[in-house]
Amino acid sequence: MKLPERIILEHGSGGALSRQLTEQLIYPVLKNEHYTELNDATAFHSSGRTLITTDTYVVDPPFFPGGDIGTLGVFGTCNDLAVCAARPRYLTMGLVLEEGFAIADLRRALESVREAAKRAEVRVISGDTKVVPSGKGGGIYMNTTGVGEALGEHILSSGNIRGGDAVLISGPVGSHGLAILAAREELKIGSALRSDCAPLFPLCEALYDLGGDLRFMRDATRGGAAAVLNETVSASEKYGLEIVETDFPITGAVAAAADLLGLNPLEIANEGVFIAVVADAAADRAVARLRAFDIGAKACRIGTVGERWPGKVILETAVGGKRILDLPRGLLLPRIC
Amino acid sequence: MKLPERIILEHGSGGALSRQLTEQLIYPVLKNEHYTELNDATAFHSSGRTLITTDTYVVDPPFFPGGDIGTLGVFGTCNDLAVCAARPRYLTMGLVLEEGFAIADLRRALESVREAAKRAEVRVISGDTKVVPSGKGGGIYMNTTGVGEALGEHILSSGNIRGGDAVLISGPVGSHGLAILAAREELKIGSALRSDCAPLFPLCEALYDLGGDLRFMRDATRGGAAAVLNETVSASEKYGLEIVETDFPITGAVAAAADLLGLNPLEIANEGVFIAVVADAAADRAVARLRAFDIGAKACRIGTVGERWPGKVILETAVGGKRILDLPRGLLLPRIC
Repeated sequence: MKLPERIILEHGSGGALSRQLTEQLIYPVLKNEHYTELNDATAFHSSGRTLITTDTYVVDPPFFPGGDIGTLGVFGTCNDLAVCAARPRYLTMGLVLEEGFAIADLRRALESVREAAKRAEVRVISGDTKVVPSGKGGGIYMNTTGVGEALGEHILSSGNIRGGDAVLISGPVGSHGLAILAAREELKIGSALRSDCAPLFPLCEALYDLGGDLRFMRDATRGGAAAVLNETVSASEKYGLEIVETDFPITGAVAAAADLLGLNPLEIANEGVFIAVVADAAADRAVARLRAFDIGAKACRIGTVGERWPGKVILETAVGGKRILDLPRGLLLPRIC
Repeated sequence: MKLPERIILEHGSGGALSRQLTEQLIYPVLKNEHYTELNDATAFHSSGRTLITTDTYVVDPPFFPGGDIGTLGVFGTCNDLAVCAARPRYLTMGLVLEEGFAIADLRRALESVREAAKRAEVRVISGDTKVVPSGKGGGIYMNTTGVGEALGEHILSSGNIRGGDAVLISGPVGSHGLAILAAREELKIGSALRSDCAPLFPLCEALYDLGGDLRFMRDATRGGAAAVLNETVSASEKYGLEIVETDFPITGAVAAAADLLGLNPLEIANEGVFIAVVADAAADRAVARLRAFDIGAKACRIGTVGERWPGKVILETAVGGKRILDLPRGLLLPRIC
């Protein structure tokens, strides 16, 4: 029995066609030494402090310059573990396919999952596929849930930050969101726009070696750097952040496209950038460690933890003034991840 | 800031409205002693053999007699762990909400998740919410990923089955699928149709106490009993199943509705029924253990493992003939779970 060219409703029925899709396409692409049988659940061994995170990807379009929903599904979830100081180990994958989605595109997305999992050193060990009627989905939606092992006893938390701590960023901001927007709208805003989608664990591990001098890390995805910086101090009654706008690394292509579209690069989603707060004395070492990686080559300090504006992020703007950098409001880019 | 009545795209932006939805609705309903901070990942402690499973729920309609997408999302995933002899411990929850979905319905679904999690003794410890534009979703889709602890060293597998083993079913078949269909089409096929959606772990645990005499368990969800029975022997070169159609417990309401609609109750999805294969000598004890539970009151033996038709399920029909009970083919009910 040959696979058809497009997904049909019966692929979600639990009957013969569901089984064919799983056995002839999904499982052969993804199987590995931990996923050797199609059972209801899969065993893994773990001990001590284990971390778990879940994310659903609804990115539109599912294929874009620099990645696709498969790379995003793997790296995005692994990065959520990495910034919590966990080594990503296992992933589960739940698909919602829309009737009519091309089987060739499904294969391409699955192959991206496989390659990204290899690069991030994780294993996909459980999966599920549902099919929804045409007009009730977006081609392909993918949930991945990640399990990781804690790197050590030191637990990162925004509660660890202290006055004078340095705020670092691991790389240039804004490329993921703009690449998606350009691909979706077929905008001619520069072919140089590519998603920064990448695994962050090696960089996070390098910072974790700083011990207690590393306070907190978070990847700057939906809502961009602005959202993450706000989340770092929003619950604090003592500390705020003083951030320097011109210190953010930003590529020429992103700056030009954001300017043209009237978007603030600090509010645009990234998929390979994180914010770290470290002790002031460790800031130079931390930046040097990040710069040892290709994707960390532009890492730098962007600000300082202060006590003047508790709970707020204050931005020193390019023209020298100061303003509150708030959580992004209003119509941002939907379906960016 | 008051929550609006309906989901809007900005609830998925990662900005202020995303945060409001999470902090004012989702997290307050679901938080528990393991989920005390809104971080990228959540820690849990585990040791030894841990099991994981994932499932996405796209049921239409999301609310139906006997349950809703929230109860289904909890019990369905916990049941996949239970039949693999794991005690469900933790769940993650990923939501895909469609623009325009009523906030009151979201609240109702989340409250069902909370109540079902209490009943199944699991904790929701990580979550994610995405929003898709109107016409790109189905109101609410929910992925849950479950983590459980192995009950012991004995690993259940269809590879354990032996000639003469008894095939048991835990309860009456067909009610979930028909309840969904009746609710979706507003069919007047009997108000007695209610989903059997229920947690199976206590029953599975009771059978696991039989030790090596318990060979294999699987819950009869999509594709119904027919799919599960086939999956039990399809890979076997030695064993097949001989099943007696009239031995299946079935309620009058299900029999009448299935007859009216021309559906085979053995192919209809269940959400609170599983198949178990046990040693012949342990069959009576196993049935007695199942019958100690309300939802197991109708448990019984439905057949035997034989060697005459390897890899096949042979059904002795109501009129006395024999036929192959195949994997369901053709147009089954879509979006049943």
